[in-house]
Amino acid sequence: ARPRVGYFYSGKKPGHDVTDTMNNMKVKDFQSIPVVVRENVSVYDAISQMFLDDVGTLFVVDKNSMLTGVLSRKDLLRTSLGSQDLTAIPVHIIMTRMPNITYCSKADSLIQVANRLINQQIDALPVVEELANGLKVVGRITKTNITRAFLSLSESHEL
Amino acid sequence: ARPRVGYFYSGKKPGHDVTDTMNNMKVKDFQSIPVVVRENVSVYDAISQMFLDDVGTLFVVDKNSMLTGVLSRKDLLRTSLGSQDLTAIPVHIIMTRMPNITYCSKADSLIQVANRLINQQIDALPVVEELANGLKVVGRITKTNITRAFLSLSESHEL
Repeated sequence: ARPRVGYFYSGKKPGHDVTDTMNNMKVKDFQSIPVVVRENVSVYDAISQMFLDDVGTLFVVDKNSMLTGVLSRKDLLRTSLGSQDLTAIPVHIIMTRMPNITYCSKADSLIQVANRLINQQIDALPVVEELANGLKVVGRITKTNITRAFLSLSESHEL
Repeated sequence: ARPRVGYFYSGKKPGHDVTDTMNNMKVKDFQSIPVVVRENVSVYDAISQMFLDDVGTLFVVDKNSMLTGVLSRKDLLRTSLGSQDLTAIPVHIIMTRMPNITYCSKADSLIQVANRLINQQIDALPVVEELANGLKVVGRITKTNITRAFLSLSESHEL
């Protein structure tokens, strides 16, 4: 029997549309490995680390590996404009520090995270686990991960 | 009449699914304004320009405003690691130059562009018009634009 006008067979359960698919995309399915540095490394060494691991954002941790700061390419570039010796400035001087850091957890939806990246104009969020003694950094989520998620929504993607 | 089992009213034309929606997303609908510098400006001034306009990538143009190079935060940060005087190095020394620049046009699909950003590991593509005397820069497309497109696919987005 042919479907009547206005109805057609979609092969999907009712309500299973792109919004549902997107709501089911979680940080843990798209996150990358975090790259961390300690608070006392120099700006010079942090920039070197950024190139070594080819990332745009470094997370700064204390001696217990808990999150204390975030360093973006922009932060490091701003510092390099000054005439200071980059080997003499520790990153804790220039980093964005808690509580001004936006972070997320593995269970958050990618839509929430994408909204935070856009609205707060940031490049990367640390993915953390909240422990008694602080925030343990377990991942990194960036606009690159969101771009991969965008492509995964398309049947014609070529990744 | 209630739809029979296996059929339901979707409110959409047959075949109008997320892949169609994504294929119809064009660069011109999501692009940003390009920020350009001339080939002889110093690396120092280029970094300053990047902060002034709050962009992560600058496009370099010749005296006819045709594209000759691209400068990323990464390129500028690498140069700042050297002990050179940033005010004494013109950007044409360090820029990525034609024909090694990946670009796109207004009519390209966002999926194509997203694939290029991921596969070639780049932050931004210049949007160009191909003229007789070169490539005129008319826009900029980045992972931020793709992230906005991702959010626009979700009914629950809060942009």
